[in-house]
Amino acid sequence: MTGQAPPTPTTPVPDIVRAAWVDLVVTDLDRARAFWIDLIGFHETAADADTLWLRGTADSVHHSLILRRGTTPACRAIGLRVRSDADLDAVRAFHEARGCRVDEIPAGHQRGVGRMMRVDDPFGFTVEYVHHMDHAERLLMRWDLHHGAEVARLDHINLSVPDVAAAHAHYTALGFGTSETIEGPDHLYAAWMYRKPSVHDIALTEGNGPRLHHVGYAVPESSNILRLADIVAARDEPWLERGPGRHGVSAAFYLYLRDPDGHRVEVYTTDYFTGDPDHPTLRWSIDDPRRRDFWGGAVVPSWYTEAMEILDLDGRVRPTADPAAPGEVVVGADGLG
Amino acid sequence: MTGQAPPTPTTPVPDIVRAAWVDLVVTDLDRARAFWIDLIGFHETAADADTLWLRGTADSVHHSLILRRGTTPACRAIGLRVRSDADLDAVRAFHEARGCRVDEIPAGHQRGVGRMMRVDDPFGFTVEYVHHMDHAERLLMRWDLHHGAEVARLDHINLSVPDVAAAHAHYTALGFGTSETIEGPDHLYAAWMYRKPSVHDIALTEGNGPRLHHVGYAVPESSNILRLADIVAARDEPWLERGPGRHGVSAAFYLYLRDPDGHRVEVYTTDYFTGDPDHPTLRWSIDDPRRRDFWGGAVVPSWYTEAMEILDLDGRVRPTADPAAPGEVVVGADGLG
Amino acid sequence: MTGQAPPTPTTPVPDIVRAAWVDLVVTDLDRARAFWIDLIGFHETAADADTLWLRGTADSVHHSLILRRGTTPACRAIGLRVRSDADLDAVRAFHEARGCRVDEIPAGHQRGVGRMMRVDDPFGFTVEYVHHMDHAERLLMRWDLHHGAEVARLDHINLSVPDVAAAHAHYTALGFGTSETIEGPDHLYAAWMYRKPSVHDIALTEGNGPRLHHVGYAVPESSNILRLADIVAARDEPWLERGPGRHGVSAAFYLYLRDPDGHRVEVYTTDYFTGDPDHPTLRWSIDDPRRRDFWGGAVVPSWYTEAMEILDLDGRVRPTADPAAPGEVVVGADGLG
Amino acid sequence: MTGQAPPTPTTPVPDIVRAAWVDLVVTDLDRARAFWIDLIGFHETAADADTLWLRGTADSVHHSLILRRGTTPACRAIGLRVRSDADLDAVRAFHEARGCRVDEIPAGHQRGVGRMMRVDDPFGFTVEYVHHMDHAERLLMRWDLHHGAEVARLDHINLSVPDVAAAHAHYTALGFGTSETIEGPDHLYAAWMYRKPSVHDIALTEGNGPRLHHVGYAVPESSNILRLADIVAARDEPWLERGPGRHGVSAAFYLYLRDPDGHRVEVYTTDYFTGDPDHPTLRWSIDDPRRRDFWGGAVVPSWYTEAMEILDLDGRVRPTADPAAPGEVVVGADGLG
Repeated sequence: MTGQAPPTPTTPVPDIVRAAWVDLVVTDLDRARAFWIDLIGFHETAADADTLWLRGTADSVHHSLILRRGTTPACRAIGLRVRSDADLDAVRAFHEARGCRVDEIPAGHQRGVGRMMRVDDPFGFTVEYVHHMDHAERLLMRWDLHHGAEVARLDHINLSVPDVAAAHAHYTALGFGTSETIEGPDHLYAAWMYRKPSVHDIALTEGNGPRLHHVGYAVPESSNILRLADIVAARDEPWLERGPGRHGVSAAFYLYLRDPDGHRVEVYTTDYFTGDPDHPTLRWSIDDPRRRDFWGGAVVPSWYTEAMEILDLDGRVRPTADPAAPGEVVVGADGLG
Repeated sequence: MTGQAPPTPTTPVPDIVRAAWVDLVVTDLDRARAFWIDLIGFHETAADADTLWLRGTADSVHHSLILRRGTTPACRAIGLRVRSDADLDAVRAFHEARGCRVDEIPAGHQRGVGRMMRVDDPFGFTVEYVHHMDHAERLLMRWDLHHGAEVARLDHINLSVPDVAAAHAHYTALGFGTSETIEGPDHLYAAWMYRKPSVHDIALTEGNGPRLHHVGYAVPESSNILRLADIVAARDEPWLERGPGRHGVSAAFYLYLRDPDGHRVEVYTTDYFTGDPDHPTLRWSIDDPRRRDFWGGAVVPSWYTEAMEILDLDGRVRPTADPAAPGEVVVGADGLG
Repeated sequence: MTGQAPPTPTTPVPDIVRAAWVDLVVTDLDRARAFWIDLIGFHETAADADTLWLRGTADSVHHSLILRRGTTPACRAIGLRVRSDADLDAVRAFHEARGCRVDEIPAGHQRGVGRMMRVDDPFGFTVEYVHHMDHAERLLMRWDLHHGAEVARLDHINLSVPDVAAAHAHYTALGFGTSETIEGPDHLYAAWMYRKPSVHDIALTEGNGPRLHHVGYAVPESSNILRLADIVAARDEPWLERGPGRHGVSAAFYLYLRDPDGHRVEVYTTDYFTGDPDHPTLRWSIDDPRRRDFWGGAVVPSWYTEAMEILDLDGRVRPTADPAAPGEVVVGADGLG
Repeated sequence: MTGQAPPTPTTPVPDIVRAAWVDLVVTDLDRARAFWIDLIGFHETAADADTLWLRGTADSVHHSLILRRGTTPACRAIGLRVRSDADLDAVRAFHEARGCRVDEIPAGHQRGVGRMMRVDDPFGFTVEYVHHMDHAERLLMRWDLHHGAEVARLDHINLSVPDVAAAHAHYTALGFGTSETIEGPDHLYAAWMYRKPSVHDIALTEGNGPRLHHVGYAVPESSNILRLADIVAARDEPWLERGPGRHGVSAAFYLYLRDPDGHRVEVYTTDYFTGDPDHPTLRWSIDDPRRRDFWGGAVVPSWYTEAMEILDLDGRVRPTADPAAPGEVVVGADGLG
């Protein structure tokens, strides 16, 4: 592995429960509503003139997606939930020991959540850690209110970074397990890392970064995904990017869409359990043509080359950098080079 | 077989294409709309103050269901479509030769259709034969407009009659094939009869009659039926009567519901092709516990004992009669007696 | 339309019921068995040292696929079933009036079928017409015996021809209806034609021909197709060519595979009813990117450019010709040119 | 709640990861193999003359089901996996402090597992705690080897006990959360309790006990369950007991079968995530007709009244006792009394 792990201070490790939300800047709330609510199937918990707080049918908390009106599409933050309020102090200590800026956001400043630590992580991502989240009615069995793809909950967040090995070392230090990887000789191209016992909460994909590659939401069954593709195509919208298909990595059934601002969402189903204490890591070769699409379908180039910019703690767009060497899009089994 | 077939005059046999609609009296159009449109998934082609003309997603004609406001729920008519306008004259001759009253309804009198023959059939059913039907936009690929169970088209009409063998002889004379039966020694309990090459356009079930047992509409896949059951249950409505389940007869996947007025609808999928010239009839024994529900689930008694009354050509409720001998509900493998 | 219809003699038109089989030359019966029986899900009705007669779960006749051992993969014949034995004489008269060679094959010469007319059709295809087919146990409800994709029955045969308009005129003269087309200004690129009331029994695709583009078999639901793709990929076989996906034309859900000899099979589900007397033709523009894959997925070039050779009545490979003008693969909305 | 919780010693609480297996006595290994392997879809990891060790497609460990030949069908043990070897000592301390007999089984005595604590729990169940399990090839993506219902992994174990509140207090002390309950005024009829973040690892149902009510195994999608029901019915076996249906409690899609010895298995899909630190308990009223079957289908009486006997640490059948008051089968909304 080429990545240089950051030095490892001996701070306590916060107990992270799961990936909890993404906070996205969109340019038109009405169009975003048509995409995320009508099509993807989110339910609105709260709204103000500039913001929507949305949840899926399996969420019993306030939101798993925040959409904010702005002039330039970007990812404002990703949210991770920790087990106890004391874990927030561990978050602060963990990151400050690594030289990261941490802003504490007191309870009451953000809708639906208690106090938060906003972290400027070593790779340029803005990560919000929270313990308390307000409850909201869980609509899992209100099938009469379901619509679109009937999205249930956030499953994972996929980050594009120039140095996957370094980011992998960081998240390993934060207590994440590794379910699967894509590897070449001495090189880690991608990693799937989990806190909840699923394939992933955070995935790392080599590429220009820091960028948000996509956010993955879970739906109950493959029929939800086929229906979604049919609905989007019937509207003749250019939002279908890749799939439906079967992943090699994760074995899940998937569809990638781009929202009207270009934010990529994966609708995802049939994950597997990774919670055993000695759960083995599944390592895919960069040369395996089934790793990205198990059926061997070609991955569209945009999926490899495009991802959304990140806002820093002060709301400015982060500069990005390219990987040092040619990436999976070039050298992979289905590569373009 | 105990039934006495009517004498067989040597009139030409009209070329019937398929079962085309049912025309139902409902007591509250708003509640009917909530059931048939929102839940079952029909689309409205036309409406006036007292009537709704509805079609499914695969229909390219004006309607496959008519709902009319009235004081007493009943079946006003069933509709069969013939291949050519001349077949309407054959319909008249065929039935008049059998002593049936036939009213000709000129084009322009009924919405969406050309001239019709309204027949008082030998068993007390009001059957409307039509050739011309107005076209309507087919919404098959407008998945963005689909809703509820995404009902596609009328599949079949199931009639409750005291003497199945007699009715079977009549429909055989009208050119119907027989795909399946339920039989006992010297007794025909039920028959499935087709013009289009499917399991049935008309089914005959022994029971108090003339009554409409149910109308069956086709949906694309079993997932549509599971979703429908979930939605109805989520609304906590008493409309689920039987299923979801797998039929023995027809091998189809099914769910029976009762609308707010008690009209029974079957939502139905995965039929088979019967169009070969020598297609064999599949005969089930009354003693086979898998004939009604292949998984062996008990049939609820109401399904055997309740069905809707029929209006005659003048709009009056038909008197009904019971079968001469104990029926399937008593003597069948899952019977109550 | 550029095609020149053949002159139209006034012979009686045979009543064709449906497409009934394809008869394929394969080079290795064991490998063919692994593909067609184990994966696609056929059941063996009969076999000898050089031939397999296979049927699907919904077939109540002897076969819908014949595989014969030979040195060069090719299509030996396609089979169409007619309503009565007399229709076979109409087949002979119809084709002889058009200058086509017709060989009568007496009953007893081919396994599972009665007498046949083997026709050298005007476009170079060998078409076997039959009325009588032996019955075989229908395995529709023997779910304990189903396997692979659980193929139910032959749905359609897709022919590659240099002049679609001419072939379309011929099949129209034979009584076929047209459910859908792909058209450009003054040019017919493809046509879907039916006798049974489905989207098609015979499809015509512009390309080098005469060639067999593919044979389509029906399965009950999309889950059968997703499972099949997973199984083939798990075996790491190179047999998946295109899909799974949703068609524009036909609205069906599909997967194309190539067998070990390159024969293309489409596994296909959720067709629609076309049996109404005035069923409208749905016309797609060559410029519509959704016509071939409704979700907008790219069609792999091999699907457009490769198809299997045809054997003539004497078992020799037919010479083929290219279309006169650039085809859909070049000028279509997702074309390569 | 009427139950009397046992006194609560202040021992450390072992970190239980999940329910791991059931160990069942069957009278005929060949028939058991036909049921559990061919139909339910298990894969054989190991076998000797008297025992089968089976795993599902998502298991990367040696077994999730043990079948042992014996003269009387019974449940020999249930297995729970703990996070570390040290947790086994905590298991011993926890139970000895409550007066329970604990036998330590050294590594090497049982196939596929390291050392175990066999506990005679306060309610008469034999519970095997283990940390180390041998690995076995995970067959999740070997779709070519999947068969039957394609069972993936053990989901939960449902115990029948006369005093649910007491057992609930015990499992709460062991660190289990409660996802759902069925309750009456001052009475707990049933509870669903979890360690892995799903609806349950252990469910408690009021009834004659100690008995094993059923073991639940997870499959990917509802189509697996429908196929299983079709296959069992096609074989005309009496193994379908209840369903397929939609649960109220858990919102899952289910089918209950009885194996040839009467052991009840639930095939189960589409659970939900319960891992949030403040995940709320969903409480159903005993008067809610949708709690057991969300679609309102009647629960067959055998499902309420029959369950399998338990062997104690010495292999003798445990005496059982009835609940003190009339149970859910009598007083529930769909009760028989």
